[in-house]
Amino acid sequence: MISVTEAIRIVIEQTRALPVERVALKDALGRILAEDIVADSDLPPFDRAQMDGYAVRSAETMSVPARLRVVGEAAAGRGWHERMNAGEAVRIMTGAPVPVGADSVQKVEVTRESDGVVEIAESTQPGQFIVERASEVRAGETVLQAGEEINAAMMAALASFGYAEVRVSKRPRVAVLATGTELVRIDEEPGADQIRDSNSYSLAAYAQLAGAQVERLPLAGDDPEILQREILDAAERCDALILSGGVSMGVYDFTKTALHALDAEIHFERVSLRPGKPTVFARLGNTLVFGLPGNPVSVSVTFNLFARTALRAMQGCRDAAMKEEWAVLARSVKGAMERTSYLPAQLQTDDEGLLLAHPLKWGGSSDFVAFARATALVIVPAGVHALDVGARVRVVRLPG
Amino acid sequence: MISVTEAIRIVIEQTRALPVERVALKDALGRILAEDIVADSDLPPFDRAQMDGYAVRSAETMSVPARLRVVGEAAAGRGWHERMNAGEAVRIMTGAPVPVGADSVQKVEVTRESDGVVEIAESTQPGQFIVERASEVRAGETVLQAGEEINAAMMAALASFGYAEVRVSKRPRVAVLATGTELVRIDEEPGADQIRDSNSYSLAAYAQLAGAQVERLPLAGDDPEILQREILDAAERCDALILSGGVSMGVYDFTKTALHALDAEIHFERVSLRPGKPTVFARLGNTLVFGLPGNPVSVSVTFNLFARTALRAMQGCRDAAMKEEWAVLARSVKGAMERTSYLPAQLQTDDEGLLLAHPLKWGGSSDFVAFARATALVIVPAGVHALDVGARVRVVRLPG
Repeated sequence: MISVTEAIRIVIEQTRALPVERVALKDALGRILAEDIVADSDLPPFDRAQMDGYAVRSAETMSVPARLRVVGEAAAGRGWHERMNAGEAVRIMTGAPVPVGADSVQKVEVTRESDGVVEIAESTQPGQFIVERASEVRAGETVLQAGEEINAAMMAALASFGYAEVRVSKRPRVAVLATGTELVRIDEEPGADQIRDSNSYSLAAYAQLAGAQVERLPLAGDDPEILQREILDAAERCDALILSGGVSMGVYDFTKTALHALDAEIHFERVSLRPGKPTVFARLGNTLVFGLPGNPVSVSVTFNLFARTALRAMQGCRDAAMKEEWAVLARSVKGAMERTSYLPAQLQTDDEGLLLAHPLKWGGSSDFVAFARATALVIVPAGVHALDVGARVRVVRLPG
Repeated sequence: MISVTEAIRIVIEQTRALPVERVALKDALGRILAEDIVADSDLPPFDRAQMDGYAVRSAETMSVPARLRVVGEAAAGRGWHERMNAGEAVRIMTGAPVPVGADSVQKVEVTRESDGVVEIAESTQPGQFIVERASEVRAGETVLQAGEEINAAMMAALASFGYAEVRVSKRPRVAVLATGTELVRIDEEPGADQIRDSNSYSLAAYAQLAGAQVERLPLAGDDPEILQREILDAAERCDALILSGGVSMGVYDFTKTALHALDAEIHFERVSLRPGKPTVFARLGNTLVFGLPGNPVSVSVTFNLFARTALRAMQGCRDAAMKEEWAVLARSVKGAMERTSYLPAQLQTDDEGLLLAHPLKWGGSSDFVAFARATALVIVPAGVHALDVGARVRVVRLPG
C-alpha cells in the first residue's frame, strides 16, 4: 500500500501534456491557458478622464470661481486633439482622452457653463480624476500566464489585449465505464438483486468539471471479454479511461484481471486511503486507466484525488491536485490506523471568520444521498484515532 | 439613491420564474431542479454485504475457529435466494444481498475454505459488514428539493432513483450589449482614442456561469436609434438584456435615454454602491434590462449583485443572491461615506482555519487585470471611513 501523497505523485509523473489548440475567445471560459498573455498596448492607452466634467490646468483653478473659455469637447472615442492653452478648458466625458495641456479634470457637478465659458467652483489638484496612461498595465507586460484557468474576469483582459483567439490545452477525451453484474441502466427497473448504475453519471459529471470531453460506455457487466474489448477500444480514442467497480478482492472482480490480460502497466493498486483503498492506476499505451472502487462515495473521493489531478495536469494546469486548506472541526471524527481518511463534510465560516468543517453523519462509504450535500472532504491522517470538536484539520473542497 | 439590499430586493420582486423543461440526466449538471426528487426504492434495496467473505450466523461463530458448510454463493446482481440454515455459510461478494438466515458477514481475509467447508477464524457481531436495507434512504423519501442546483454527486442520486429525465427550469436567454463610441471589436486595431470591447466578454461569461444561454449583440456605438432598435429586438427574444456603459452622467450616455424613449419601466437608476453607483434596472415588457456602468470592475460587481441574482431567481434557485460570509481583513481598506463598497480581494484560510481577505492593491475601479485574480469582494458598509487589518468583514465569493 502506498500513501495518498505518493499515489498523487505517481499520477502526475505518468501524465503527459495534451497538444495545444486555438479557440475563439467566446469559447475559452474555463479552459487552461497554453500561452502567456501579453499586453499589446498600455492600459489605459491614454490619460483617461474618470469623470464627466472639464479638463483644466490646476494652476488656473487655484482661486475659485475660475472662469475658463470652453474650446472643445472630448468624448470617449472622439478625443479633442488640439493643444489646450492658458485660460482654456475642454468639456470632457468619462473615458475620453485628456487633452494635451490639461493636467486635471473637474467634475461637472461643481461647474456651470454658459456662452462658451465655464465657471469652476472648486480647485483641482494635478492629476485629479485622470487615470494616467499605462498606470494599470504597460505594453509588453505579461498579464496572465500559461497554466491559469480562464475565469470570467480574465475574459475581459483577453478581449482588451486583442486575443480574439487564444491558445489553450486540448480537452482530455475521457471514457467512463461502470462494471458490476448488479447494475442496470437508469431507464430500467432493477430486479431483486440489482441496482441502477449511478457511478457513470457522477463520474462523467466530475470529469466534465475537470475540463474533459466525456463519453459514457455501455454497461459491461462482469464479462471479462466484453470488458477487455471495451477497455481496448476506448483506450485507442481516449486520453483517460475511468472504470468503477470491480477492484475489490472478490472473485467476480474482473477489472484488474482485464488490465493484466491486456498487459497494462499497473502503477499502483492499493492506496492507504479511506474510503478508496482498492484504487488501481494503470497505463495502457498512452491512455491512463483509473480503476475506482464501486461505491459512490469512494468513487468521488478517488476520482477527485487521482483522476481529476491527471485530467488537469494533462491540460497543463498549474494547480492540478486538490488544494488543501485548514479548517476547524465542528463535530468529532474517527480516523483509521493504517489509512488516511477523507470524510465528507460541509464547510461554513462562523461569524468570526473561522472556517468550520461539519463532517456529515455518514452511514458508510456508500451513502451518496447525504454525500450530495458535502462540499468538502476532511482529512484525518493515518494513525490518528479520533479528532475532537475544535481540532484543526486539513480539508479539500469538492468541485462543482 | 437606494441601498444595495433594497436594490436586490426589487430585482427579486420583479423577476418571474421561467417555465420548466425535461432534460436527459446526462445534460442536467448545473441545472436547477424544478421538482422534488423522491426515492423510488429503499437504499440499499436489500441487506447488502460490505465485504467479500462469508455470510454466517454470528451465534455460530462465538467459539472460533468455527467450521461451516458452504452451501452457496451470493454475488452482486446474482443473489443466493434459498434459506441459510444452522451450520451453514454462504460465500458472498461486496454488494451482494445477504441471504435470509444470515445476520453477519466475515471478511475473506480471516477465513479459509476447502472441500466445501469454511473455517472462520474470528467471531462476528450481529449486523457486521452488512448495510441494512433502507438504512440510507427509505422509498418515498424526498432526497433532493426543487430549487437545488444539480452537482456531480447529485447526478448519482438522480441516476440511482431512475430519473433518466429530470424536470429543471429553462435556462434564461440573455443578450449582452456593450455601448460606447470608444469601443472597437476585439479583432480590430483600436485607434488613438479607442479601446477594445472587453465588457461583453466578461458579461457573457458571468451570465453563462449563472446558467444563461447568451448572445453577444454587435457593438451599438452611441447612436440612439441603433441602440433602441437593438434593445427592442433583443427584448422580444430574451428574458434579460445586459447593457454596459452609457449610464453615467455624460451627454453621450444614451442608454437611459433609450430606455425612456422605449417606455421601459425604470425600477432604479442609482444605487449607493461603490463601484457601480449608476446602475439602471428596468423592465421592457417581460424582459429585465440591466444597464451597468462601463468600467470592467463595476461591470462585474453590478452584474453579480443584481443580474446574476435575477438569472438565478428566474430558474427558481433557492439562494439566488450571492451569499455573504465572514472573513478577517489582511490589509486595511477605506470605505465611502454614502455608499457601500464592494472591494476586490483574494480569500485564503490561514493555518488556524481563519478566512483572511486580502484586498487587492487596486488602481481604481477599472483595473481589471488585477481584478482577474480576485476571488471575492470585501463589503465595507456605507459610512465606515476605514477598516484596519484584523477587522471582521463580510465577503461574497465571485463565481467561476
